[in-house]
Amino acid sequence: MPELRRNMATGEWVVIATERAKRPEEFASHREPRTSPPHRDDCPFCPGNEHLTPGLVFALPPEGPWQVRVFPNKFAALTPDIPLQRSCDGHFHKATGYGFHQVIVETPRHDLPLALQEPGGVDRVVEAWHRAYSFLAASPGVEFVIPFKNHGEAAGTSLEHPHSQIIGLPIFPGHIRGRMEEAIRFYDAEGECVFCAMIRMERTAGVRVVAENARFIAFVPYAAFSPFHLWIFPKAHQSSFQELDDACKADLSALLRPVLRKIHAGLQDPDFNLMVRSGPADSPRLQYFHWYISIVPRLGKAAGFELGSGMYINTARPEESAAFLRATEA
Amino acid sequence: MPELRRNMATGEWVVIATERAKRPEEFASHREPRTSPPHRDDCPFCPGNEHLTPGLVFALPPEGPWQVRVFPNKFAALTPDIPLQRSCDGHFHKATGYGFHQVIVETPRHDLPLALQEPGGVDRVVEAWHRAYSFLAASPGVEFVIPFKNHGEAAGTSLEHPHSQIIGLPIFPGHIRGRMEEAIRFYDAEGECVFCAMIRMERTAGVRVVAENARFIAFVPYAAFSPFHLWIFPKAHQSSFQELDDACKADLSALLRPVLRKIHAGLQDPDFNLMVRSGPADSPRLQYFHWYISIVPRLGKAAGFELGSGMYINTARPEESAAFLRATEA
Repeated sequence: MPELRRNMATGEWVVIATERAKRPEEFASHREPRTSPPHRDDCPFCPGNEHLTPGLVFALPPEGPWQVRVFPNKFAALTPDIPLQRSCDGHFHKATGYGFHQVIVETPRHDLPLALQEPGGVDRVVEAWHRAYSFLAASPGVEFVIPFKNHGEAAGTSLEHPHSQIIGLPIFPGHIRGRMEEAIRFYDAEGECVFCAMIRMERTAGVRVVAENARFIAFVPYAAFSPFHLWIFPKAHQSSFQELDDACKADLSALLRPVLRKIHAGLQDPDFNLMVRSGPADSPRLQYFHWYISIVPRLGKAAGFELGSGMYINTARPEESAAFLRATEA
Repeated sequence: MPELRRNMATGEWVVIATERAKRPEEFASHREPRTSPPHRDDCPFCPGNEHLTPGLVFALPPEGPWQVRVFPNKFAALTPDIPLQRSCDGHFHKATGYGFHQVIVETPRHDLPLALQEPGGVDRVVEAWHRAYSFLAASPGVEFVIPFKNHGEAAGTSLEHPHSQIIGLPIFPGHIRGRMEEAIRFYDAEGECVFCAMIRMERTAGVRVVAENARFIAFVPYAAFSPFHLWIFPKAHQSSFQELDDACKADLSALLRPVLRKIHAGLQDPDFNLMVRSGPADSPRLQYFHWYISIVPRLGKAAGFELGSGMYINTARPEESAAFLRATEA
């Protein structure tokens, strides 16, 4: 029987469409393995082609050959080179396209996806996300910062070389403001961060947990909006990605790597998006909001119903998705 | 220079990314024309195969060979055959999958897209949407009804035969509730429906209007979230799709057809979604909300930034998209 579930943190409902449900293994991409050379002369992200990218923000390690490289996006959606100005003509409200849009190349190797990097490689990428986040969040006029990763064509990228991106916005997105308001309502009513409550309930239920270590937990949410949609949370309350200390970074990386490997192995390297959802840039610590990473394998397509209602039809039971990933060797 | 724009009705910001902007004609799909036979023996929506679909809700005309046929979706996300029950275990809130999910086959012709139907054909489809909407909205337990159309694979359909769908939900989507709240805030502050204000401002500005007749107007919104994203409104205030009378239906159809033809011709039959966004099912007339049709050609892909922030990067200037469609022969 189909079922509707409500996400306690977002207030959004999802249809769990059991009538068209598939078994977890049927979601595997069944693609031929991606075959890329370790280096391409025409790839702007490969070593030797650094002149093809506009400048450098930082590299890791800072000296010697780079392993991770951060630079402004050549086709930036926003730029720090223009002054921030808002104006409102009647109700036609606009702002100049001030902001930041940077690229994080995750490895010199053209053919090495994040899931297959050594532990030290994933550590470096988490460190780079955190540094870039902290820099953008502290920049004047930036209200919201979002690190994200598009893996594969269905996830919106045409560049093969493993990379992620980060955008710093001069406005606060309405969608995120709605989420914050939902979290405030819960906090006012229950006296607890809604995400802390969710983490506690998911740990107790257990059936949707995929992996866990001392400081982080990964689970398929009760009201996951698509098959294998997965959230990674710091277990202790933190409202901003910026609050990560070295011990947390190590634990995040130590959990992210096996989670990505399970997705890579179990679903045959599917296209996916990964997003860090943090609180407002450079804000004080908030009791009611909790940052997290959301991973969305792109196994279906949002269609008219989803665009029109903001709701999703999930053709996989979250408990089955979680059990499948739990059982997949990392 | 890139620019951010805020949609006055939804409160959402969009990035108009001029750095990567394309000229309107560059958005054309450049696909080979879809070549389908007028009839396929193996198509469940073609005449002669009615036994392959589960039952009949209604057909138009009611007697003689059908031109439009409405029936329950064989792979329904929701079903009226189970009782509606909500339950909440802790904060794990769920509901049984009670609801409606119907298919509207728009023509007996396998190869005749809505854009290329004769005026009478589009009239019949609008009539069918309205009848199906009215029936679902009046059904016990239904809180929200959404008619929608997925045209082409990128828009989420695998079935070629021209059809639309309608879903009746037993809950009110959080996303739509957010929109309603935004509209209430505007109404409280300004004493006017925010959509009525927007229609007035867009008519005055003129630059984003695509087509207009006595009762309906089509424009690319000021803060359109994707290239050629287009809204069609009844000019007089109406909060529900159900309020359409015969004169309105005729005018809606008379505007929808040339708009779809402009998209079909100008963008070379792109994949697109079409959604009717109406107020709550079976509610009294609301002063603060206005129903409309949203058309979204699927010319790009939502990626990590969009999924993470709820914001979109539009690579086309709304004014240029509108001018291009205005100039395209219907």
